[in-house]
Amino acid sequence: MAGNSFGDAFKVTTFGESHGPALGVIVDGCPAGIPIDEAIIQRDLDRRRPGAHPADSDGTERSGRLNPAMTSRKEADACEILSGVFEGKTTGTALAILIRNTNQRSEDYGDIVRKFRPGHADFGYFSKYGIRDYRGGGRSSGRETAARVAAGAIAKAFLSTLGTSVRAWTVEAAGIACETCDESVIESNQLRACDPVAAEKMLKRIIELKGAGDSAGGIVTCRARGVPAGLGEPVFDKLDGLLAGAILSIGAVKGIEFGSGFASARMTGSQWNDPMRRGSDGKPSFESNHAGGILGGISNGAEIAFNVAIKPVASISLPQRTIDLDGNEVDIEVRGRHDVCLCPRIVPVVEAMTALVLADAVIRQRGARQ
Amino acid sequence: MAGNSFGDAFKVTTFGESHGPALGVIVDGCPAGIPIDEAIIQRDLDRRRPGAHPADSDGTERSGRLNPAMTSRKEADACEILSGVFEGKTTGTALAILIRNTNQRSEDYGDIVRKFRPGHADFGYFSKYGIRDYRGGGRSSGRETAARVAAGAIAKAFLSTLGTSVRAWTVEAAGIACETCDESVIESNQLRACDPVAAEKMLKRIIELKGAGDSAGGIVTCRARGVPAGLGEPVFDKLDGLLAGAILSIGAVKGIEFGSGFASARMTGSQWNDPMRRGSDGKPSFESNHAGGILGGISNGAEIAFNVAIKPVASISLPQRTIDLDGNEVDIEVRGRHDVCLCPRIVPVVEAMTALVLADAVIRQRGARQ
Amino acid sequence: MAGNSFGDAFKVTTFGESHGPALGVIVDGCPAGIPIDEAIIQRDLDRRRPGAHPADSDGTERSGRLNPAMTSRKEADACEILSGVFEGKTTGTALAILIRNTNQRSEDYGDIVRKFRPGHADFGYFSKYGIRDYRGGGRSSGRETAARVAAGAIAKAFLSTLGTSVRAWTVEAAGIACETCDESVIESNQLRACDPVAAEKMLKRIIELKGAGDSAGGIVTCRARGVPAGLGEPVFDKLDGLLAGAILSIGAVKGIEFGSGFASARMTGSQWNDPMRRGSDGKPSFESNHAGGILGGISNGAEIAFNVAIKPVASISLPQRTIDLDGNEVDIEVRGRHDVCLCPRIVPVVEAMTALVLADAVIRQRGARQ
Amino acid sequence: MAGNSFGDAFKVTTFGESHGPALGVIVDGCPAGIPIDEAIIQRDLDRRRPGAHPADSDGTERSGRLNPAMTSRKEADACEILSGVFEGKTTGTALAILIRNTNQRSEDYGDIVRKFRPGHADFGYFSKYGIRDYRGGGRSSGRETAARVAAGAIAKAFLSTLGTSVRAWTVEAAGIACETCDESVIESNQLRACDPVAAEKMLKRIIELKGAGDSAGGIVTCRARGVPAGLGEPVFDKLDGLLAGAILSIGAVKGIEFGSGFASARMTGSQWNDPMRRGSDGKPSFESNHAGGILGGISNGAEIAFNVAIKPVASISLPQRTIDLDGNEVDIEVRGRHDVCLCPRIVPVVEAMTALVLADAVIRQRGARQ
Repeated sequence: MAGNSFGDAFKVTTFGESHGPALGVIVDGCPAGIPIDEAIIQRDLDRRRPGAHPADSDGTERSGRLNPAMTSRKEADACEILSGVFEGKTTGTALAILIRNTNQRSEDYGDIVRKFRPGHADFGYFSKYGIRDYRGGGRSSGRETAARVAAGAIAKAFLSTLGTSVRAWTVEAAGIACETCDESVIESNQLRACDPVAAEKMLKRIIELKGAGDSAGGIVTCRARGVPAGLGEPVFDKLDGLLAGAILSIGAVKGIEFGSGFASARMTGSQWNDPMRRGSDGKPSFESNHAGGILGGISNGAEIAFNVAIKPVASISLPQRTIDLDGNEVDIEVRGRHDVCLCPRIVPVVEAMTALVLADAVIRQRGARQ
Repeated sequence: MAGNSFGDAFKVTTFGESHGPALGVIVDGCPAGIPIDEAIIQRDLDRRRPGAHPADSDGTERSGRLNPAMTSRKEADACEILSGVFEGKTTGTALAILIRNTNQRSEDYGDIVRKFRPGHADFGYFSKYGIRDYRGGGRSSGRETAARVAAGAIAKAFLSTLGTSVRAWTVEAAGIACETCDESVIESNQLRACDPVAAEKMLKRIIELKGAGDSAGGIVTCRARGVPAGLGEPVFDKLDGLLAGAILSIGAVKGIEFGSGFASARMTGSQWNDPMRRGSDGKPSFESNHAGGILGGISNGAEIAFNVAIKPVASISLPQRTIDLDGNEVDIEVRGRHDVCLCPRIVPVVEAMTALVLADAVIRQRGARQ
Repeated sequence: MAGNSFGDAFKVTTFGESHGPALGVIVDGCPAGIPIDEAIIQRDLDRRRPGAHPADSDGTERSGRLNPAMTSRKEADACEILSGVFEGKTTGTALAILIRNTNQRSEDYGDIVRKFRPGHADFGYFSKYGIRDYRGGGRSSGRETAARVAAGAIAKAFLSTLGTSVRAWTVEAAGIACETCDESVIESNQLRACDPVAAEKMLKRIIELKGAGDSAGGIVTCRARGVPAGLGEPVFDKLDGLLAGAILSIGAVKGIEFGSGFASARMTGSQWNDPMRRGSDGKPSFESNHAGGILGGISNGAEIAFNVAIKPVASISLPQRTIDLDGNEVDIEVRGRHDVCLCPRIVPVVEAMTALVLADAVIRQRGARQ
Repeated sequence: MAGNSFGDAFKVTTFGESHGPALGVIVDGCPAGIPIDEAIIQRDLDRRRPGAHPADSDGTERSGRLNPAMTSRKEADACEILSGVFEGKTTGTALAILIRNTNQRSEDYGDIVRKFRPGHADFGYFSKYGIRDYRGGGRSSGRETAARVAAGAIAKAFLSTLGTSVRAWTVEAAGIACETCDESVIESNQLRACDPVAAEKMLKRIIELKGAGDSAGGIVTCRARGVPAGLGEPVFDKLDGLLAGAILSIGAVKGIEFGSGFASARMTGSQWNDPMRRGSDGKPSFESNHAGGILGGISNGAEIAFNVAIKPVASISLPQRTIDLDGNEVDIEVRGRHDVCLCPRIVPVVEAMTALVLADAVIRQRGARQ
């Protein structure tokens, strides 16, 4: 009811504030027998880690080069498996992962304590609870997503045993769109973009915005491959509904579209409907994928494809108009080390949430037939 | 787990196939003491009813004029309250609503029985269950949404006691966008559009497409007003996440965006962040609403605003390429009385799902504080 | 949250008041492909039907002989399947069953309207909701269990495809205990007792109590056979925990014990522990069954066995002390046609709840391993 | 679905094996503003701690005297709050508590690795998962209840702000029943019994059984006071149903009875029904409490009272007959430091589960009325 859990059969429950002792997650419902170790989790955590150059995120070495799109905070984000794994395999019982916070400085939060930051959840939290952990946003901090990424790594490991993979990347940032798509370059540029030339332009623009005390948004796309037909439930738990709910539960996301998405509105049925054919392997296939791999809420075996709109980072150092706890109109300048554009760091979070939805759908599907 | 329920504290469970004896819904968790009668439910059911001219949907008289955007099927969609209401008020116990199907003709389903209709859930259902109720799409029929609309009417009645209202309308259909917005005209034109001039053009285009055996998509927008700040849960059950999940669970929806949505990707933080001021009534207010009324997943008291992408109707009479149950490549012509553009009929469904999310969030919020 | 649903993967949601138009249930999560028709459901509904002689409950003919243990109300309790079954098999979608109320007389409820009946939920409901459907107890009526029995018939049909069966019977009523156990006589005596001689004594005692305006309690036992080892979840959803929750959710039940139950308190570990052996079929077996087929919350393959304590019927015609809505101390005489001892009618309800728990556990178990 | 969560609105999710790095719990849905610190949690953890003399469990000093009813293992069971508390109060967000395991010796598990211990969940786990963490029972260890006790301390703190308290104690152990009831002596004898004379006899008998390599069972009773009328949900989530499910989810419990419980079976309605009167404070009261404070599943404002049957400890050093992984018939001797009788240590677990059910019911009740 208070919403710190996600999923039905493959269920995760997270905890942790930005400036508390630790974050973590309990994964409940991962089948027994899946090979898991901390390195698998750490690899994705490192991709989300602030200050990391994407090229460094292989988990083995770190260049120390700073990524200007990201905050300069350094967090080890080292994970520890506390339960649910025995002799290198899941046991079927609750799998808990702990990530200690190591880099909270004892800050002067003065301005933030009594003023609501524009673009942030501050006012909503205060309205909701009548109390607010103002340190770094508390539970509303993007840091919360570290626990999702850890859980997502378990889901990915489970899915990989079934031949299913999930991959996301940046297609637009700071107003600059990718014009080519080469998936092999994604993890080697600082924006996790599929077009290295565009990535350079994005970076240049982000450095300018950073200098101006401002920030940028972007668009991330995601693909799930090897998804069997038949996942998703017919009515309220349609697969696209679950994915939309999952992706919109990431703080900075403001929109999602599947397949042809908003462009579908201008198409006719004869243009939109994806004709079915017998594939070269004898299995059903589709001549196009306007549906994005999901029809009537059920996967159809085609690639699942969706785009995600990311708003510009809320924390900017330019002065902004706001009010304080007493309702006085005041100005605020949000200081600190913040990301300028979330795209590269949100990529593993989008992947994680997608993997969690798919892992859940796979297990739920086991109940569909006698 | 099988997804016929929606909501956590204000929960609905639906049943019913297009060509079975009846559809219906159980509303579980509506507080006791809310005034409810069948007329309240019937009003919204009539707005969703096929073949209805929007101007006729006041529930008192029906012109008999046909709406060319809609199917010519006639369904009474008369509702019966079976439980949970005593002496005109909810009792707090399960509230059940029954809607008998009255217009299923004994059809020859021949072509549909063995061929998968492009753009439909047929192949997915068959992959999932190994069995399929092919009559009118069975559970995947849009007719399923009648039960949602009935439940939504209960949610709206509950919300209205709190001063909260929900309204949706068409802003684009068949490639034609509204250029003005006058909410007073919505229920008096056949597209439920906010621009009567655009509505005439949409209608003309839809008649052309119908003649050509084709169909159209569109965009619906939704506003929730009088929503208190503080609704929604911080992590996985963010209010926008719940709304996205709810709206994408409507069959024909392919995308959703909140506030500035996908345009946010091209904005900077200083452009996007909505400054806070003290309103003329002394209460916090916002100078703009790029957030669409939700920040960090929590309502901020501003109007909740989102757009919904509707794909073109899948059932078209033009011949299409597909496969049959044995994997043979075949052609299919989908006959029958179908909608050409779903926008006007999907409007009450969008409202219903939005009302269900908000009613649920209101009750969940009661647990937030001591 | 409001508790009209039961189960996780095989989930039922019920509705209906004693004196409203109908009761019913939605079964969500029954796998596709299970043979179901209304006769299967009607058979168990007839066993629960008031006024039925157990011997008449085969659903084909009814003797008209009245059972003195039961109310003389006659209710047809005819069920109608509204969805989820196509061509004689479940489709995997929501399966709804409707049972119309046919025998609500327009009564004078005078005394009950303003006085709280001792032994009933009246005061609790009023405290909870501030409003109360006093007609026949409304939602708190034992009539609510008809919907459970209908759902249980679906669960039994599913379980029977796996070789699992559930059977309950009376072992004590009105202070008289069975001294022999012959399961073949259960459905042929009016108490559904396993000892026909004791059943005659029970009946005699019940007739005496009825004449005195009083009522009786009893003990029902239940066995589930053919339950595979491995059902149940390790921590909070232990199989015995789920069964206990299910059985105690039946209005008149005041206790449950598994295997040796309360007698376990006086045993030593060496007496209690059931030794394991290799059975004649080569499979693991147990030399005794003090555990009642469940250890650490997981089924061990032995017969599941538990006893259920049934309190005496609350509605008695003897005058009782109570208070009214204004807090005045008053006397009340509860008139009407009531059961004297619930045992025979509660037997199918206990079976139904047990079958629902097991069906749920079977599907949940499908997620336990890769 | 995998059952590591409990509760609906006030929900806990636990993790941790006996011999893994740590146990813990996430409490989700505790209202904001409740004063909490680690000392509150530690107090109850110390009551459950193995080897503790009850008199030592005030958390301030420990006598070092060993309790012969309990294992001689020493575990610090020190808790750490990881999130959800800020400046001494709950924030409304997920509250996580960590308890490190400190006393797992690197044991030779030889016999247990391949043999199923009688009276334990070993065979069930193996049947369920095909894999088993045999170290100390893994997830099936009674050590799992430490996380429940930690969560229960939060629930108790919440309930105490509403004037509701929960207390449990031993009424029978090793075949010896209490003959007097003085609640003031409970925490000062080693059995947590309400009769100090009986407690001495129990202890003597337990020492004898220990010497013989055997173990004992018992009965624990529980009272909840200051529970408002109106808690519990009418149908499947009756308050007694939820309590029964909660209590039977504790490993060693084999039965539960409310109020007059199994004795109800032999009473008549006129004996059983609790007459209502106007209390001296003008509020409704009951002349007796055969119902145990719950009627029709809803609390009636009287004291909630139930008894719990505890089976003898399964781990005994006497040789037992069992089978091994290959199905061979073998003997097993379970060595190690084990409790002889669980009663004193299960008392805080019963309290914790009861508090969790009540805290949940309190928040759910907030949705019952407009």
